[in-house]
Order: sequence, then C-alpha cells, then structure tokens
Amino acid sequence: MKQPNNQRGSAPREKRAAKGAPNEGAPIAARQPQKRQAGRPGQHAPRRRPAEKATPVNIYPLGGLGEIGKNLTVYECAGDMIIVDCGSLFPDSDMYGIDLVIPDFAFLEQNRDKLRGIVITHGHEDHIGALPYLLREISLPIYATRLTLGLINNKLEEHGLRSSVETRLVVPREKFKLGCFSIDPIHVNHSIPDAVAFAIDCPAGIIIHTGDFKIDYTPVGGRVADLDTFAEYGAKGVLALLSDSTNSERAGMSASESKVNEGLATLFNRAGQKRVIVATFASNLYRVQLLIDLAVQRGRKVAISGRSMINNTRMALELGYLHAPDGVLIDIDKADRLPPEQVAIITTGSQGETLSALSRMAANNHRNVHVGAEDFIIISATPIPGNEKMVTRVVNGLLKLGAEVIYENMYDVHASGHACQDEQKLVLTLTKPQFFMPVHGEFKHLKRHAQTAEALGVPAGNIILADTGDVITLSKTGCKADETVQAGAVMVDGLGVGDVGSAVLRDRRLLSQDGIVILAASVSAKTGKLVSGPEIFTRGFVYVRDSEELIEETRKAIERLLAGYAKEPQREIGSLKTRVRETASSLLYRRTKRSPMILPVVQEV
Amino acid sequence: MKQPNNQRGSAPREKRAAKGAPNEGAPIAARQPQKRQAGRPGQHAPRRRPAEKATPVNIYPLGGLGEIGKNLTVYECAGDMIIVDCGSLFPDSDMYGIDLVIPDFAFLEQNRDKLRGIVITHGHEDHIGALPYLLREISLPIYATRLTLGLINNKLEEHGLRSSVETRLVVPREKFKLGCFSIDPIHVNHSIPDAVAFAIDCPAGIIIHTGDFKIDYTPVGGRVADLDTFAEYGAKGVLALLSDSTNSERAGMSASESKVNEGLATLFNRAGQKRVIVATFASNLYRVQLLIDLAVQRGRKVAISGRSMINNTRMALELGYLHAPDGVLIDIDKADRLPPEQVAIITTGSQGETLSALSRMAANNHRNVHVGAEDFIIISATPIPGNEKMVTRVVNGLLKLGAEVIYENMYDVHASGHACQDEQKLVLTLTKPQFFMPVHGEFKHLKRHAQTAEALGVPAGNIILADTGDVITLSKTGCKADETVQAGAVMVDGLGVGDVGSAVLRDRRLLSQDGIVILAASVSAKTGKLVSGPEIFTRGFVYVRDSEELIEETRKAIERLLAGYAKEPQREIGSLKTRVRETASSLLYRRTKRSPMILPVVQEV
Repeated sequence: MKQPNNQRGSAPREKRAAKGAPNEGAPIAARQPQKRQAGRPGQHAPRRRPAEKATPVNIYPLGGLGEIGKNLTVYECAGDMIIVDCGSLFPDSDMYGIDLVIPDFAFLEQNRDKLRGIVITHGHEDHIGALPYLLREISLPIYATRLTLGLINNKLEEHGLRSSVETRLVVPREKFKLGCFSIDPIHVNHSIPDAVAFAIDCPAGIIIHTGDFKIDYTPVGGRVADLDTFAEYGAKGVLALLSDSTNSERAGMSASESKVNEGLATLFNRAGQKRVIVATFASNLYRVQLLIDLAVQRGRKVAISGRSMINNTRMALELGYLHAPDGVLIDIDKADRLPPEQVAIITTGSQGETLSALSRMAANNHRNVHVGAEDFIIISATPIPGNEKMVTRVVNGLLKLGAEVIYENMYDVHASGHACQDEQKLVLTLTKPQFFMPVHGEFKHLKRHAQTAEALGVPAGNIILADTGDVITLSKTGCKADETVQAGAVMVDGLGVGDVGSAVLRDRRLLSQDGIVILAASVSAKTGKLVSGPEIFTRGFVYVRDSEELIEETRKAIERLLAGYAKEPQREIGSLKTRVRETASSLLYRRTKRSPMILPVVQEV
Repeated sequence: MKQPNNQRGSAPREKRAAKGAPNEGAPIAARQPQKRQAGRPGQHAPRRRPAEKATPVNIYPLGGLGEIGKNLTVYECAGDMIIVDCGSLFPDSDMYGIDLVIPDFAFLEQNRDKLRGIVITHGHEDHIGALPYLLREISLPIYATRLTLGLINNKLEEHGLRSSVETRLVVPREKFKLGCFSIDPIHVNHSIPDAVAFAIDCPAGIIIHTGDFKIDYTPVGGRVADLDTFAEYGAKGVLALLSDSTNSERAGMSASESKVNEGLATLFNRAGQKRVIVATFASNLYRVQLLIDLAVQRGRKVAISGRSMINNTRMALELGYLHAPDGVLIDIDKADRLPPEQVAIITTGSQGETLSALSRMAANNHRNVHVGAEDFIIISATPIPGNEKMVTRVVNGLLKLGAEVIYENMYDVHASGHACQDEQKLVLTLTKPQFFMPVHGEFKHLKRHAQTAEALGVPAGNIILADTGDVITLSKTGCKADETVQAGAVMVDGLGVGDVGSAVLRDRRLLSQDGIVILAASVSAKTGKLVSGPEIFTRGFVYVRDSEELIEETRKAIERLLAGYAKEPQREIGSLKTRVRETASSLLYRRTKRSPMILPVVQEV
C-alpha cells in the first residue's frame, strides 16, 4: 500500500516532491509483484484484453484527497484530458474571512489544449461549486444529468456565465465520447437525485469512478443503483476503481431513505395537533418529497422556508423531480395564519448555519414563522463535524421558545448518502479492479477504505493511497505515483480569487487575537522635531475608555523617544519607526501580556 | 415547569428582567399547588420537620446554567452566604483572543460581608478554574477534599496566591459549619478521584448539591458513590436537589471505568510488539492508574508526556492517588531508546489541542517521541463537541506517519464521568426532593433532566428550570424565581480581566474577516494643503504586492479629496476624516466586495 509520507499543506507541490518518503520514486510495480497472488479465487483478477498494448492513463486528483470537498479529478490518455467534477470546499474556521475554497487550476491552465470537457457526477457543491471559477478561465463543455444540469445552470446564471457555457445532457447507460475517452454514466443512489458513477473507457483500460454513492435497495422515488452495469464492467475487466471513502469507518450498510420515511411518519403522528417544522438539506429532494407526501396524507399544507430550499424545490417541481398535488404548497407568509395542525414547514438550517431560516426561527426573528409551544420541530440531518455547537445553539433557542424538538439520534430521521463498508465491498466485488484508489475522504477515510479493499483480496501493491496533487500513472503492466503537479487550495474572498494567501491569513489571525495599535506622528524632515502627535489608535486591543492610563503611558513613552530623535546626529526615519514599534510593543506586553499588531505611522513633513 | 423565556446573552441581567415571560413574577406556588398530588406513592414527599417555620434559602447560580462550564452557585440563608465551586469556561471560537472565561463576581463583591467560605466539589477546571480571580478580590477560606486541594494549591501557586489563601481539608461524612450552614460532603464517582456532593443543611431545609457525578458500581481504586447517605437524607426530607444534567440526553447508565479497563487490556494485547501510546485527560487519574497497571502486567515501562499530565501524575503519586512499582516510570527522553514492546507512553492531547504532546507527535515535532510504524496509539477519550476537527487532524497525522491508531468508537476506550438518565433517576428517587433544579448543562440538557424528574413524579411546578443570574427563593411553603442579579461571562485576556468586552470582540471579529486599511496624511493647519502622504497601509486585507493597482487607485482618490480640502471655505478636520473613510470604503468594496476596517489618520501640522 503506497503511503505518501509528506505533509500536504498549501506549499507548492514541487517542493513537496523533494521531501518525499524514501520509497517515493520507485514504481510500485518494482516493490510489489503485479501478478495476482495465487490462492485468491480469481475474484479480482481482470480478464485482460489479449492484443492490447499497455497504454498508460494518468490520473491527477486536483482535490478531494486528504479532505472532504473540492473534488476534481483529471484523466489523461493518449493526449486527451477530461475533468470529472469541479467542486468547492467550505472554509475551515481558521480561514478568516474566506467565503469559499476552490482547487488550484494552474495545472488545467497549463494543459488547456488537451482538455476535452468536464463530466459531473451529481449536483452537490463539493462537486460543482468551483465550476464558475474554472469556466471563467477555460471554456469547456459540461456533461451532466438533468437535475445536475439544472443546479449547474442556476449557478452559472448567478455568475453571469449561463449563456457562454455549453452544457450537454447525459443519460445513464448512454455512452458519449470525449477525445479517446468513451464515458458511460451509471445510475447510483445518493442523497440527491440523478447521481451517476462513470465507467471511463480509454486506450489504457476501463476506470470506474463512483462519485458519491450509496446502495439503497428501497430508494424513494427512484431505482436501486445499477449494480448490473458494475458487474458487467467487472466481467469485462476494470483497470482501476476510484471509490467514495466518506463512510469507510462505518460497518454495515447505510440506512435506506425508506427507513427515514418510517421515522418521520412516526414523528408526524406524535406531533398530533402541533405544527410540524422539518429542517433538512435543500438538495435532498428525496427527503423533501417524503415530507410533502407525509403532509398530504395528514391533510397539512406545506410551506417552504430558506432561499436555497425555495430555489431547489421550485426547480425540482419544474423538472419533475418533486411532485405535489395542487394547492398543497403555500407561501410561507400564510403559514402562521393557518391552524398549527394544518401546516408543515420544510426549511433550511439543519446544520445550525447562522443566517439560515431555522436559526432565525430559533432567535425569534424569522419574518413569517414564530415558533412556540404549538410547534413540533424535527432536525432531519446529522451535524457535520465542526457544526455541533451551532446546531446545539439552535436547539436551545427552539426549546426556550417552548417548542418540542427532535434532534440528533433521538429518532431515525436521517440517512447518510454515502456507502458504508458493506456497500464499498459490494462495488469492489462487482468491479474486480486491478488497481484500487480510495477517493473522497480525509487520510483516515482513505486508509480505512484501503484496508477494506485489502481484506477483500486486492493486493496491497495495487492499492493507491494518493494525495491531492499526486500524479498516478496506470497501465495493465503497472502503477507509478512518484510525481506531483501544482495543486492545493485557492481561497475566494469577495471578488478576489487567490489574492488572499497565507500572509494575509496570518495577519487576520494576529489581528483577531489582540487587535492592532497604530502610533501616528509627524516629524519635521529638516529638524527631526515632532510637529504633530503622537496619537494612538487601537482597534480590538482594549476598551479605550477603561484604559486611558495605559494609552497615555504609551503616548508619553513614544513622545520621549521622538523628542530624543531630533537630537540625534544621524537621523534615519526607518530605524525610528522600528524603535517606535519596539518601545510600544514591549511596554504594552509588560502591562497586558498581549501582543497586538503595532503599526507606526511616522510621516516626515 | 418554569421556563424563563428570555434570551440570555451577555446583556446586563437587569434588562432581561423587564422582558420576562408573561408568567414571570408570579410565584410558582400560586400557579401550582404545593401539596403533593394524591396517587403518588409518597416517593417524593418529604417528611416535614414539624415545628420549623418556613425560613427561605436563596440560590444564586452565577454560572453553569445554560452552559457547560464556569460553575458557581451561591446559597444564602439567614444572612449567611456560601459559594459552591468557582469554575472557568473555555472560550468559544468566536471569542477571539480570549484565554479564559470566568463568572461575573459583582454580586459576590456586593455581598462580601455575608460570604462565609467556598466549598468545592472536585478539581476540574470548570469547578476550580476561576478561584484565583475571585480570591484576588475577596479573601475566603476554601473547603475541599485532599486531591482537590492539591490541584487548587498548584493553581494558587501559579498565581502567587498560595500563602495568602486559607484552605481546609474536607473528608466525606465529616460535617462542617459555615455560618448557619452545616455541610456534609458525600462521596460520589466521577472521572477524577475525591469528588463529593454536598448535603447543605440550613434553617430553610436540606439541599443536595450533587456536583459532577456518576454512579460506578465497579469503580477503579475507590468506592461506589455513597448511595446510603443520599437515601438517609431522602428519608429525613430534602428541600431541593440540584443535580448534574450533562448526560441527561443519554438513556441507561454511564459505562463503568472497569469496562474501559477491559477495552484497554484487549488493545494492549493487540498492540503486540509495538509501542503503546495512550492519550487521555490529565486529570483522569483512574485512567492513568489503569494504564500503569496494564503496562506493569505486560512488562512495559511507562513514560509520561505533556506538562499537565506530568504535573498531575507527580502530585497524585505524592498524595497516594496513583501507585507505580519502583522503576516502572521512566523519563520521556528515554522512551525512544527502549525497544517498542517495552514502552507505554501516557500523554495529553486527547482533544487534539494544538500544542499538546500528541499533536506534536502527529506533526512529527515532539522532542522525544518519534511516531512511526512501530506505534500503536489509543485516543482514550471522546471529542468534546467543537473539537472533532482537531482530533481528526491529529489522527490523520499519526496515520500518515504509519502508526496504528484507535480512536472514537472503535473500542470501549472511554467512559463518561457524568450520570446518564438511570443514574439521575436513582439520585432523584433516593433523595425525594420537594423541589428539583437541574444544573450543569445547556438549556437542552436541563430541559431533558426536568422531563426525567417529571416522569418520576416530581410535580412540574416544583421543577425549576433556571438560568445563570436568576434568584431562586425556596422554602417549604413555596418557590419563587422572579428576580435576577448581575451575572454573566467575564473574559480574561492576558493580564486583563473584563477589559475585553463586546465592542473589542466585535472589532477583533471585523479585523479577522477583512483586515484593516490605514490612510495616513498630514495637512497644514493653516492652509489645509497636503504636506505629507497620503500613505496607505493594509493588514489582512489583500496581498499588497499583487494589488498595487488597487492601492494606487485608492491613494489617488484620497489625494484628490485632500486637494479639494485646501480650497474649502470652512475646513473641518473631523468631517474630512469621515469623507476619507467613506471614499476609501466604497471604492474598496466596489473593487473587492470586501469591507475592511478603514482608519483615516489625518494630522494637522
């Protein structure tokens, strides 16, 4: 099992290559025999196509490995390149002020002549969120299923790109060509409709790229994932499988969406005469359909709250992914006027997001919905790691308003959209890949997925534990992963893409800790004498009215320093600024044990 | 069930009282008959002491309600006051730069003449962390058990208060008097030794204050919680029970520490010839003892890593709370030199804390411990909400170094120190309180605990869902909770206690989002003409070298503005500064969609 040993940060990839683990540089084939081990019952041994020569395919994961988010994988074969997915990542809490993180597109820009198109597995932000930023730089056609295209078009519209981008509708099992690649979309289950895996056939062989998937034997309003086609490709011979690792730590099978139906139905009964409010992900149209159906059965009208929920349901109704009898859907401003037992509200905010509809309800400042003892509220989602505190804040707020609140594991009110171990095993078993590369996960998820594959008999040497930026070269005769390309996180802040880097972030972090102190004075260029100031301004350091003494003491110290400056034989304004900074810094630290940023603004007039 | 309906923030308590829920102001006794309901089999009906008049006791929770942390409760009866616990709170992520949060002591300072002493339930930070800050202001004796005193003394030492504070050793079942209060310490189980509940007897009646507790029938190196004494007081008649609500959402019983022993023993076997590294809480001496015992059985030496782990084990060994055969404990700098199968390392960092020993091992920069494929690492704790991402980062780092890592629910390697529902029910049943007040929890925990009590037959009107700052007046004839006192969060930053308030925090937040832009210029006081500048300084806004054009454009705009100033008939420097700010602000927002803080520094010379 190949394990890159270097730390992956935002450092340029070239640097990292030099610091590689000792075994980097040696092709895995040299370390691990490529021949299948005896004793394995042929389960994973592909039947090779006899007369083919070993053309290699290069795989460039430019995002999505070592992280959950900004998925982007490039495949290159015989001079053609395709991109699978182009997602964004929600910034970490230490990325101060950043709105969005997207992949580094430098490698794509360097290879724009080879790029044939972008294929998209499904419409979640971590798979489509970076598309506008890429399409602004490089013009490429997008291939996606109907609902996914709907979501992409909304996004392109927002960025003023709708008319300039070519989109192509993709239908499961209808192959299409992009350069030397023949691509076969395969229906899979996920927490959004119209998700597909891709069988990517190229001169090097067939690669199965699962995208996000689960296997739901009793899906809501759809079919079971197309296991037959996975099996068919497995029989043909699969060079490599790239499979979703999100839930690789969880044993068994993910819960079916139908199971959630049972849980929610029970809760609707328990709600009795109360109004029902359910928060879930805006993109989970299956869940929204379940809720509409339950409401209809109980004679409740349905109101939708939250911008993304409103947009998504509107589009899904238009495209036929959601169905509601006439008159069931009502405007949210009517919800407060109907008797509680006649209303169900579907809302955003299941993650406790600060400005979401549910957060506003909990803070009692939602324009149309006023929560009270007549409300029965269900949070139909589990908190994404990092969001627990925000969700708790919302739950506390709703409880204080007197509502009954169902949250976390109090009932089966959520099902994950990602395959657990037994589903991962099933796909491995059906596709029988020669090489296996776990994707879509942090290192711990990839590693655990690799262990699952090894337990099924995939030889350790054929399992590729790669990282964002690695170059993986595969052919029927071997595997190599000793190079890297530029890849990493590009931060979007307002209109700026990539102009906030580590230096700016470091300043923001410092500013957030102890604030800033500005020392302003003007000195005569001729005499060096103080002509104005020193004035002291602080922001985020201390409450100035309570700290007049400290400020005055600092002002006096700087004044003394400046008075001395006039008498110096060789005056140098740069060194004066340094001394002003040092004097203030050490004085303030002594008095407060804080280290604000110190900015001397000394002007010569 | 009384439910304060107002939002609790850092706003002064006086304001809140005015906005109270409609039923606030009416004593609960008026709404709910105080007589026990017929049909309840006397389970919770106290036998009243016959000849006593209904003296009231006031309870002032100054921290610990609506939050987990900074526990501090004041009891007042017949002119005497005592304080139970004096804890700190770890700052939320939006409290930029804050080191520690402590309770507001204003109420205590106003009542210093009535205060008779501080009694402490156990030695965790959320119960003792604010002691130095209180003792600096008010001199009071501290009453605590032996280990707890040991931890308090370390803390006082650090703050240079050791010699000036009077401490008194407390032993379970040995009553002591503080004014009119007679206090009986009752042994309970918790994740630190020497934890006690208190039976507080005063003219108003008996109050049981559980502190943090669990009931462990098979504890490690100690006795089961003293259920007999709870029962004894129940038989005598308990006016009120204040009980730990942390785990009120969890059904059943908390796991026994012995169960953890089994889990860890299995893992030590699985570790085989590898070195074992276990991260846990430094204060969990039971866990540390388990690990030492397991190491001794397997012929491993034990090394301790992490400052707090070293300090705590040293003190616990001295006081006899930990036992290790001679020669078992070795210095951490020897650990790397012994064969892996002969070493176990006990370390801090189970929460992924940035500078902890385990984090340093994961980042491969621990001075003495170099993690690799020979290591078997166990994280023996569950992540506290909010810490999940940090723990994941550490796990990823350790896995990348090749270690085997056991984390989260992979094994039974942790047991909570707090009572689950069945333990809460047991204490309710044994003590049969007339009034019940859930404490130590966020609102959702308190509410759930209240529901548990109601299910056991405590009348809803006798359950007090209070908040930090409420004043609860109890007597045998009724309960009242319609007043509040000053209470809230005081932030500690460096040497400053309370000098960082909401204004400073707001500035820090703004600075962290988009940074600051400083516009400096000097104008002649006489002519209004520009004599120096404008100069532009930015911090945390944009990477200046990539934004020269933007900076220059801004500089020119300010220059034009200043040039116009000289020609104005009525020059006013204040309004000039406002115009400078507005010009820069709107230009920068237009170009970047960011809103940095703008500080014009215009000096007249």
